[in-house]
Amino acid sequence: MTITEFQRRIREIYFDKDSRRGRDGTFRWLVEETGELARAMRKDDRSNLEEEFADVFAWLSSLATLEGIDVETACAKYSEGCPKCHATPCMCQEKIA
Amino acid sequence: MTITEFQRRIREIYFDKDSRRGRDGTFRWLVEETGELARAMRKDDRSNLEEEFADVFAWLSSLATLEGIDVETACAKYSEGCPKCHATPCMCQEKIA
Repeated sequence: MTITEFQRRIREIYFDKDSRRGRDGTFRWLVEETGELARAMRKDDRSNLEEEFADVFAWLSSLATLEGIDVETACAKYSEGCPKCHATPCMCQEKIA
Repeated sequence: MTITEFQRRIREIYFDKDSRRGRDGTFRWLVEETGELARAMRKDDRSNLEEEFADVFAWLSSLATLEGIDVETACAKYSEGCPKCHATPCMCQEKIA
């Protein structure tokens, strides 16, 4: 499944609610789901952990749609390796800690 | 680009650093980037906003790889519509606020 297909699917399922809720409420949901991901990491429940990754990505996709951003297009910044050093693997000195 | 291809690309670029940093430090980066997304929303800088969506997804992909989760497989929970009400569009009474 392409990133665009997933964003479109999430739009088909949730756009009506997302647009009524608005971007700030949708951002709040994204952060709430990120918290659920943190809890799933702590409890190490594999099934739940998998679900939470999907949910965070779904809410990120909802928010991108509200903001008029195509996530797959945005991801092109990684197509030539690290956007900062342009290497694969990344050779930047930062992002280690 | 499929979700799996993006996760693989991010792994190729960052896995060495991600694995040395570990899952907690990588989660911290995910949250930091989510904060940058919030700031880009506030400033309404379209170019920066697009970049921040890609960065949040990249860090989510890094974290999933460290946790042994395939994001595309995880996303299958949305393949039959809303995972709770199984409808497209979602008919759940929740998630509006």
